[in-house]
Amino acid sequence: MKCSISHAPMGWNSYDYYDTTVNEQQVRANAEFMAEHLKEAGWEYVVVDIQWYAKNPGSMREQYQYIPFGGLEMDGFGRLQPDVERFPSSAGGRGFGPLAEYIHSLGLRFGIHIMRGIPRQAAEKHLPVWGADVTAADIADPSSICGWNPDMYGVRKNVSGAQEYYDSIISLYADWGVDFIKCDDICNTNLYPHNPYSAAHEIEMLQRAIQRSGREMVLSLSPGPALIEKAWHYQKYANMWRITDDFWDDWALLRNMFDRCELWQDHRRAGCYPDCDMLPLGRLGKGFGAERNTRFSKEEQRCMLSLWCIFGSPLMIGAELTKLDSETLSLLKNQEAFRLTHSAFQGRQFEKNDGCAIWSSKNRETGERYIALFNFLPAPQEISCLLTEVEQFAEDFTPVLKAKELWTQEEIPLQGELLGARLAPHDGKLFKLIG
Amino acid sequence: MKCSISHAPMGWNSYDYYDTTVNEQQVRANAEFMAEHLKEAGWEYVVVDIQWYAKNPGSMREQYQYIPFGGLEMDGFGRLQPDVERFPSSAGGRGFGPLAEYIHSLGLRFGIHIMRGIPRQAAEKHLPVWGADVTAADIADPSSICGWNPDMYGVRKNVSGAQEYYDSIISLYADWGVDFIKCDDICNTNLYPHNPYSAAHEIEMLQRAIQRSGREMVLSLSPGPALIEKAWHYQKYANMWRITDDFWDDWALLRNMFDRCELWQDHRRAGCYPDCDMLPLGRLGKGFGAERNTRFSKEEQRCMLSLWCIFGSPLMIGAELTKLDSETLSLLKNQEAFRLTHSAFQGRQFEKNDGCAIWSSKNRETGERYIALFNFLPAPQEISCLLTEVEQFAEDFTPVLKAKELWTQEEIPLQGELLGARLAPHDGKLFKLIG
Amino acid sequence: MKCSISHAPMGWNSYDYYDTTVNEQQVRANAEFMAEHLKEAGWEYVVVDIQWYAKNPGSMREQYQYIPFGGLEMDGFGRLQPDVERFPSSAGGRGFGPLAEYIHSLGLRFGIHIMRGIPRQAAEKHLPVWGADVTAADIADPSSICGWNPDMYGVRKNVSGAQEYYDSIISLYADWGVDFIKCDDICNTNLYPHNPYSAAHEIEMLQRAIQRSGREMVLSLSPGPALIEKAWHYQKYANMWRITDDFWDDWALLRNMFDRCELWQDHRRAGCYPDCDMLPLGRLGKGFGAERNTRFSKEEQRCMLSLWCIFGSPLMIGAELTKLDSETLSLLKNQEAFRLTHSAFQGRQFEKNDGCAIWSSKNRETGERYIALFNFLPAPQEISCLLTEVEQFAEDFTPVLKAKELWTQEEIPLQGELLGARLAPHDGKLFKLIG
Amino acid sequence: MKCSISHAPMGWNSYDYYDTTVNEQQVRANAEFMAEHLKEAGWEYVVVDIQWYAKNPGSMREQYQYIPFGGLEMDGFGRLQPDVERFPSSAGGRGFGPLAEYIHSLGLRFGIHIMRGIPRQAAEKHLPVWGADVTAADIADPSSICGWNPDMYGVRKNVSGAQEYYDSIISLYADWGVDFIKCDDICNTNLYPHNPYSAAHEIEMLQRAIQRSGREMVLSLSPGPALIEKAWHYQKYANMWRITDDFWDDWALLRNMFDRCELWQDHRRAGCYPDCDMLPLGRLGKGFGAERNTRFSKEEQRCMLSLWCIFGSPLMIGAELTKLDSETLSLLKNQEAFRLTHSAFQGRQFEKNDGCAIWSSKNRETGERYIALFNFLPAPQEISCLLTEVEQFAEDFTPVLKAKELWTQEEIPLQGELLGARLAPHDGKLFKLIG
Repeated sequence: MKCSISHAPMGWNSYDYYDTTVNEQQVRANAEFMAEHLKEAGWEYVVVDIQWYAKNPGSMREQYQYIPFGGLEMDGFGRLQPDVERFPSSAGGRGFGPLAEYIHSLGLRFGIHIMRGIPRQAAEKHLPVWGADVTAADIADPSSICGWNPDMYGVRKNVSGAQEYYDSIISLYADWGVDFIKCDDICNTNLYPHNPYSAAHEIEMLQRAIQRSGREMVLSLSPGPALIEKAWHYQKYANMWRITDDFWDDWALLRNMFDRCELWQDHRRAGCYPDCDMLPLGRLGKGFGAERNTRFSKEEQRCMLSLWCIFGSPLMIGAELTKLDSETLSLLKNQEAFRLTHSAFQGRQFEKNDGCAIWSSKNRETGERYIALFNFLPAPQEISCLLTEVEQFAEDFTPVLKAKELWTQEEIPLQGELLGARLAPHDGKLFKLIG
Repeated sequence: MKCSISHAPMGWNSYDYYDTTVNEQQVRANAEFMAEHLKEAGWEYVVVDIQWYAKNPGSMREQYQYIPFGGLEMDGFGRLQPDVERFPSSAGGRGFGPLAEYIHSLGLRFGIHIMRGIPRQAAEKHLPVWGADVTAADIADPSSICGWNPDMYGVRKNVSGAQEYYDSIISLYADWGVDFIKCDDICNTNLYPHNPYSAAHEIEMLQRAIQRSGREMVLSLSPGPALIEKAWHYQKYANMWRITDDFWDDWALLRNMFDRCELWQDHRRAGCYPDCDMLPLGRLGKGFGAERNTRFSKEEQRCMLSLWCIFGSPLMIGAELTKLDSETLSLLKNQEAFRLTHSAFQGRQFEKNDGCAIWSSKNRETGERYIALFNFLPAPQEISCLLTEVEQFAEDFTPVLKAKELWTQEEIPLQGELLGARLAPHDGKLFKLIG
Repeated sequence: MKCSISHAPMGWNSYDYYDTTVNEQQVRANAEFMAEHLKEAGWEYVVVDIQWYAKNPGSMREQYQYIPFGGLEMDGFGRLQPDVERFPSSAGGRGFGPLAEYIHSLGLRFGIHIMRGIPRQAAEKHLPVWGADVTAADIADPSSICGWNPDMYGVRKNVSGAQEYYDSIISLYADWGVDFIKCDDICNTNLYPHNPYSAAHEIEMLQRAIQRSGREMVLSLSPGPALIEKAWHYQKYANMWRITDDFWDDWALLRNMFDRCELWQDHRRAGCYPDCDMLPLGRLGKGFGAERNTRFSKEEQRCMLSLWCIFGSPLMIGAELTKLDSETLSLLKNQEAFRLTHSAFQGRQFEKNDGCAIWSSKNRETGERYIALFNFLPAPQEISCLLTEVEQFAEDFTPVLKAKELWTQEEIPLQGELLGARLAPHDGKLFKLIG
Repeated sequence: MKCSISHAPMGWNSYDYYDTTVNEQQVRANAEFMAEHLKEAGWEYVVVDIQWYAKNPGSMREQYQYIPFGGLEMDGFGRLQPDVERFPSSAGGRGFGPLAEYIHSLGLRFGIHIMRGIPRQAAEKHLPVWGADVTAADIADPSSICGWNPDMYGVRKNVSGAQEYYDSIISLYADWGVDFIKCDDICNTNLYPHNPYSAAHEIEMLQRAIQRSGREMVLSLSPGPALIEKAWHYQKYANMWRITDDFWDDWALLRNMFDRCELWQDHRRAGCYPDCDMLPLGRLGKGFGAERNTRFSKEEQRCMLSLWCIFGSPLMIGAELTKLDSETLSLLKNQEAFRLTHSAFQGRQFEKNDGCAIWSSKNRETGERYIALFNFLPAPQEISCLLTEVEQFAEDFTPVLKAKELWTQEEIPLQGELLGARLAPHDGKLFKLIG
């Protein structure tokens, strides 16, 4: 059986701030900050995103995000290794072992990003596949590429040595102590619009390799949008999958996430977490050549966090943690909101129209109830919800006395089961109902 | 709140045998048969399908299924009435009241089919809308038609009198004693491929009218395929919705239903039943001009029934009941299989590949477990399932001692949690697991 | 054989200024203006556009452009007649006869707009078809409607009486003296995106009816975009067909017309004129409730006219002619430019890129050569063309001494076969080459 | 200016018989046969198709048509060279020079196939680009591949060295004496369905390189279907372009070619020849592992040849010439039919319906007239055409006395301008009209 993690993962990811360039010291600094300030609120994963195996990443940033035909750290079996320049502790073939060990010592978990497939360079060099009788050229499919990253070829279906290749990299990661694998170019292989789920067999091979490795590892699939017709397959083989393309601090993208959450709300359960992508809060964009604060207003930040929570998405912070301002830090410490990531909570859209959305969530075990209100308009608006109409609450409705808004800690008394509030433009409010 | 029926409806529908031509006597005969032979196994709805208001339906069958610009029985408010020729008890403005009363007297429930919208003839005649200050011409949208039936225009959104029109027809049906409304050309308005959910507002008006009527009525939407992106809206406003286009006794359509069930498996819950359409069993097709036996083999019949049951679809018999052969009748009396229509059962696809499918179902309340095996191939095949791998059973796995196949009543002992069987071409087997 | 008119038609159309509301007096005034001021430059058609048969058109303009279920003037055979209120000379069943006669007396030609199909009201009333044994209900297809106008049903294919219906209306128009028929909802039946050429049989019936009528009539098809895969069919059965949806005074639409002309440039020949739609110049929009001057700058007007001319489109003025300012009038008197509408000229795109387009045209018979330069940018730009590179001119290249710009009458000498000019933003220049 | 060849090219191509495996001796044998038997009827090009640079092509035929990561003959500038094993005369860096010379000595012309782009191996090896300051890695686009052949990467747009690369290969081909270049994966880059004309800039670079080379070379683009919206661009930069995907001896493909010819009929002129692909006649398929005779019946062969001729397609024989039977050879000697490849002839579809097609052609200079009749049905059929209705002939119609069918040499007298004949299933008849 695949890893059946009981809550949506919460953590930090290097991409939004560092792009392809993050190094060991920076990862450690963020992990230390998390251990000291955020672990208590539920945050635990530290994820090194794309290009940790690349030499001189970012050095041609004005031309390419990913340098074509550039240098990659690779062992004799075509398995990528951390760039020793940036990750000195990986010297001597130790890979991410020492870094993982350090992160574990902080009481946290360690994750890495990988690209689907096998390095193109391994195929061109006909390198042997570890544990098999074939070479990379035999299992690499020269017609299966990523549309935006030049490093890999997809692995063929049903050929000898293919599963062995995936086993060989995953067992290496297991040896390193990896707890979380974010695999890219696999959830939606969007270069192939007529066959965007062309890597289904690679998802299956990855999950099989994880189970064979004997180590519990969360399997996270990117990029989105995930394909709703394949929901059952993601649910069977993965733990999280991206429901949109890359998310950034832009209202249009945030507004669009409501449509995606609407679509995926019935596909979340223990071990299965549709993923709204990283939270672009705080300081962002340094690796992209333009460090800046998030463009989201305070209201939009609450709107985003309220949606991610009530929908039950994984939560991955995009900010450089060591530069968090106190207001953002305070948002991220709101344990009462983040409890909604537990699989016992089921979020449901109650209403969505041109002006607003309303969601409910109920804990199947404890009966706890939450309501979130969202204002889509660029103007303030009164939004209200008759709680007796909410399907989740109706079966055995127990009266609600008051509601606590979790970002402001405001408590409001209820008049006749009608929960209402005035919301600033693009604001979101997340209420815990108190009976 | 909408009607929260706790199990998927089971009943009989006039279409597969009678097409547009069914009459009162025939409906009564089928109801009587159901009451005597099938009620005990859970069957209860008797549904009069399309064109009950049309004069001389079927009289131009070689040219048209639906006679354009033909005669319709209609009151002064544009509300369609049963054709008195065919439904004599409706004389004197009594509508379907007497027929409903008779069906209720048998301990059964009564359903009718309607087309979305308002009669084109009512709009051309500028008939008043009951309870409103407007005429049919004000609320009818001349650009909103059905692609295959010429009777109606869609009702406009957000215009005065529109909700009143729907209230006026639904309160009439409530007065008649209708328990079930199958509304057509509304689930997927497929004439408009760029806007196949163009009647969303009419679904909302219908549900509102039902709640205003004060009578519990099941709302069933046709035709399919329902739109997966609108799952939340169907779930909020309807009780069942068709997940495919018209289903008939053809293996290609049955094979395709597995893809549709795969897609909709997570969208079923109390009050919400994705609908696989009528069961084309027994005698069929008389109204279409070619009476015949079902083209499904015995194996395909079991395959179909096993899928409908384990998925938890509504079950509507298409056969003329009074002509059922004993073998078919025996299939339809299998109460143990039809228990799976209860909302406490949750069906899930465990595997689907080119050759077979495997589904599981578990009762959330009682813990009862079922497994269904399906052979897609035109050749016999051994199919097996390791029960410990099934996600639904895994959490607190209790050993299985034997399994009873429900169509054959065969019991097989289990060897080490592996349930296997040899299936004939296109066969389905439905097992109840016994711990 | 269909009418093989030797040049693209030039005229005036009532729509851009009057929408649905034009009346006889207004038509006469425009015709008189044309005869006096424009005929000499080649303008000759006077076309009454949509809804001449409707009662009180425009009276519900804020709700509907076309009043649903409104009053239509119709004879006993379902043939629409001019609204007597607006066209008094049509009284006594004389139709457009007197108006056509008047226009002919001015040395001009007369055109009318029709909608594809037969009035819905004729079908509902089962009116007889003139010259056939059937009624409108037998030939009307209730599933074939226009997406934006509620008046008609399409006529069925291959049914008795269908051709007779089209014969009956066209012979009526021939009797009236109609020279030009603009049929709408037929070139692209865009309500049916999977079958946008669903009225192909009606185009054929129309052309057959015209030939049977014995009167030469130009057949013009709307709306666009015409379907390039059906080019051969338009060419066989029609004289002009719209290559875009409605064109208005908006740069984005004008820019887009270059893409459409590029596509259709090889499909123009004697009797066949792909149509860029009316010229929204001068005073516009009164019938739409907002009379105004064209929003096109002087440069954009020259750009438009240069493209229509060098491509060889029909030219239909949208302005209210009696209100033309002198500058616009002077543009419209440029006979030297309008000679390019002759079928002996063949226009060809030489270059198109993000910033500009260059077209050439050559008269197959006289060898006359033209070049047009177009600036797509919102900034001035130098654009030039090496004439020896132009395919049309290459075969037997004769040196060019100078070029005359036709809107400004400026003459420029040529340096070494390079024709260049500085163009203002969105400007177009049309040069006649002088050898 | 590009090569303005005055008739559609006629020749032989190695692919249909040899797949990837053709060698020098085989090319010479076919050339010799052509010179002796076919040159007189107009055949002149000898084209070596795909993979002449590959080592051991065909050696893994059951797995791959094109061996991934296999050996390629390549110079130090990434320019592919003939495989010396198969083309011994290329030894010592002489490339195809000696073979071209031999073919020229027979009075024929020599053509080669190339894949768009630059070898992937050249990019991985960072080989220098001849005549530029960059390496293959700088101009290769790792996201631009062919979907079915693993050899190349597309060349980037607007980067330094890109044009130089194309100049470097084309000047090499010019040195060799190449007369005809068939470039593949360029006419429709169908791996990219949202951008199937993604190699437009490579077409432009190729044409520019040809003009810079100073040698007249025909530029032929594959594979189809060509994009009708880009017709102007093919016409400007290429001499022929494939209007369908690969054509083989299958009636469904032949029937489909009528739809494609219908679409492209107006886009043919001197120097511009839409291309129906090779003629799969005679012996075929040896390199594919299954040598066989064409599956086309004699009637289908005449149907195909009649269509290719009256449409005016290039004609490329797919058969192994040395194995031609006498009947096929006789078809291929029909000079009177092949005259229609001249650009002065313009073919036009007169009619196409479910059962048949009728085409006309007229020579703009001589006035010669042809008619072709085609029977789509699997049964014999009488097909006739009223010659006075044919638009091309109408302008100055001169009476027709008789018609000669060109494949049978039968002459039939004409009754009243009606040309008719009885056609066997799938037959085609090509008539020369005699006045």
